[in-house]
Amino acid sequence: MDSTPRGNRLHIAIFGRRNAGKSSLINALTDQDIAVVSNVPGTTTDPVYKAMELLPVGPVVIIDTAGIDDTGDLGQLRVQRSIDVLNKADLVLLVIDAGTGVTEFEEDIVRRCQEKKLPAIVVLNKIDTHPVTEQELADTKEKLGLEPVAVSALTKQGIGELKIAIVKNAPPSWDDQTIVGDLLNPGDLAVLVVPIDLAAPKGRLILPQVQTIRDILDHDAMAYVVKERELKECISTLNKKPKIVITDSQAFLKADADTPPDVLLTSFSILFARYKGDLETLVAGAKAIERLKPGDKVLIAEACTHHRMEDDIGTVKIPRWLRQIVGGELDFHWSSGHRFPADLSDFKLVVHCGACMINRREMLSRIMQVQQAGVPIVNYGVCIAYVQGILRRALSPFPMLQEMLDDVE
Amino acid sequence: MDSTPRGNRLHIAIFGRRNAGKSSLINALTDQDIAVVSNVPGTTTDPVYKAMELLPVGPVVIIDTAGIDDTGDLGQLRVQRSIDVLNKADLVLLVIDAGTGVTEFEEDIVRRCQEKKLPAIVVLNKIDTHPVTEQELADTKEKLGLEPVAVSALTKQGIGELKIAIVKNAPPSWDDQTIVGDLLNPGDLAVLVVPIDLAAPKGRLILPQVQTIRDILDHDAMAYVVKERELKECISTLNKKPKIVITDSQAFLKADADTPPDVLLTSFSILFARYKGDLETLVAGAKAIERLKPGDKVLIAEACTHHRMEDDIGTVKIPRWLRQIVGGELDFHWSSGHRFPADLSDFKLVVHCGACMINRREMLSRIMQVQQAGVPIVNYGVCIAYVQGILRRALSPFPMLQEMLDDVE
Repeated sequence: MDSTPRGNRLHIAIFGRRNAGKSSLINALTDQDIAVVSNVPGTTTDPVYKAMELLPVGPVVIIDTAGIDDTGDLGQLRVQRSIDVLNKADLVLLVIDAGTGVTEFEEDIVRRCQEKKLPAIVVLNKIDTHPVTEQELADTKEKLGLEPVAVSALTKQGIGELKIAIVKNAPPSWDDQTIVGDLLNPGDLAVLVVPIDLAAPKGRLILPQVQTIRDILDHDAMAYVVKERELKECISTLNKKPKIVITDSQAFLKADADTPPDVLLTSFSILFARYKGDLETLVAGAKAIERLKPGDKVLIAEACTHHRMEDDIGTVKIPRWLRQIVGGELDFHWSSGHRFPADLSDFKLVVHCGACMINRREMLSRIMQVQQAGVPIVNYGVCIAYVQGILRRALSPFPMLQEMLDDVE
Repeated sequence: MDSTPRGNRLHIAIFGRRNAGKSSLINALTDQDIAVVSNVPGTTTDPVYKAMELLPVGPVVIIDTAGIDDTGDLGQLRVQRSIDVLNKADLVLLVIDAGTGVTEFEEDIVRRCQEKKLPAIVVLNKIDTHPVTEQELADTKEKLGLEPVAVSALTKQGIGELKIAIVKNAPPSWDDQTIVGDLLNPGDLAVLVVPIDLAAPKGRLILPQVQTIRDILDHDAMAYVVKERELKECISTLNKKPKIVITDSQAFLKADADTPPDVLLTSFSILFARYKGDLETLVAGAKAIERLKPGDKVLIAEACTHHRMEDDIGTVKIPRWLRQIVGGELDFHWSSGHRFPADLSDFKLVVHCGACMINRREMLSRIMQVQQAGVPIVNYGVCIAYVQGILRRALSPFPMLQEMLDDVE
């Protein structure tokens, strides 16, 4: 993750009075020092930049602005340096000691954020020692115009909700993920295997295929698009090896057979599981499929209500595959639209749709919601790759995830 | 045109009583025998199939059903053979002698067409000897439920309107034209040059590019998609020559420089001028640009009303280019939406938009309307290719049109 350019990282600035618990909040968000991969040294008066991996949000830079309210002690320079951080932040966390409440300082920060159209999240910390009442939440909201998130950095209560709030409030540019471009160098060649079947829209390509071509071109690489029947012919026309072959899942076995073994191979589904969500969590979820037992509760969740075809993937195919693997009946439940069942904790697995109709932000929120309930989650693409035995090969561009998949627990 | 598979030809069945003037109507539609390229021989009792080029509708098969009403003379077999034609037709022309009017025979044919959901056009012929009144038109419409087209096969009055009615009533499948697939054999390689500029939609490709890739795949060929900067690199990765390079017009000169001279080269605009209209007529129209003189009336027509950008193609760029070629001011007029100015005859040239928002059928209707007024027509793509001096090279897949362009008049 060190190679992620700083420009792609979500910059989260933490503001708060000296006793608000900023440092412990950062530790709670990032599971303490484990995730801290670099520390830009700073004096005690300067903001501290910490590049880290905030799972499942992704790579972030946390900017710690210590003690902006101590104007008496440290003077105008220190205040100015902290205020300058607002020019570098994508998102502001404003940490308030729940026992102290809102002061002029917090009102000033919120006003400055509004002026800069910078998203801000108000965090009421220390609810372990000062449980907040509904009235206090409402008062805070009225004073600052923002719905506060109540947390305890100490017990980690509310930290999951805070992560969801971060994802929901991240600026639009944060959704600009690359599909495959980060795996390619300029001049590299990617071969796309695109079956044309009844599901393909007349005279068009499906959107993920178009987006992938565009992403390849945006990274100064080249896209060679063929049907599965022409892949062998395509490879034979080339005097250099492609960097990667990306295939529709339904043509995976044929693509695997026709792709030289030293060429990376993956599927559109895997790339989009990464693009739309958090591939690591979803691959971890795939391992939970092995542990399913007959009678286990499985939730199949779709983000939209679509017209169900005869051999519908969510209601027919995936249940059939999972039953075969488990060797018995499972207790399937289905949900669609934006809401999960109120209590997820009884489920042994959530299988989520590919999220074609929702954005990365929403899919990440949903992944986090399931994780907080302690339930493993896969999406359709990862689930199908797993049950068909192709997940390992399809993760060839991501060797760390291949290792994770191989780990015996 | 002989190589057009019969399946792609619009099959037009002509029905009418023996004296309705079917044969002369066919001759009037097709400029007599010139366009007749094959005659499937038949007895006088059998329907006659004539494959021909009905400009600008395209390749058609005209099925001449002689004398279906003569049951007394020829018996049930002949009637049945004519009725069977309805199973092979895409469109029915029902020819009526304007002096005779509607009989049971015509009502029967219309009823059969409705049962088969077959589009039918009622043609009131011989208006040279029997001018039809508004009342007669209304009566015919009431009896048959279809708006009649009044023509004289002898004087050709109304034949243009009839061609427009044919285009408008042709069944949806008739719009299934190929973009580039007919120029490719299975296993052929087409290189697509796709600049990514500000006009490209974020994270997507523009529709003509997507449609072209799909068309290539539909014809078992392969599509290699690159930006103009990578074209040279792309060619160097290949150990066989591509069959064709298709470039965005704005990258044409760069693409021409980087494409081996013996490889076909064209632009998306040229392919779509053919796909959406009638390339031959549009190339003929390009020759009219040479003949323009200062002060000439030029109509710039757009099918839709779009947001005009600063350097708008229709209001800024094309007028500028045409003025430069003519060496003086031109009398530009603009139209948008579905209507042309009432009188087109004063115009020396119509420059039509690329028709991205209308279908082939509507574009062909518009081309015919302009042709009937005796005015040359080009579309944006052909016009720009011409004024930039690249039209000849861009027509390399169509040597007959190259020759037409080279002909000194």
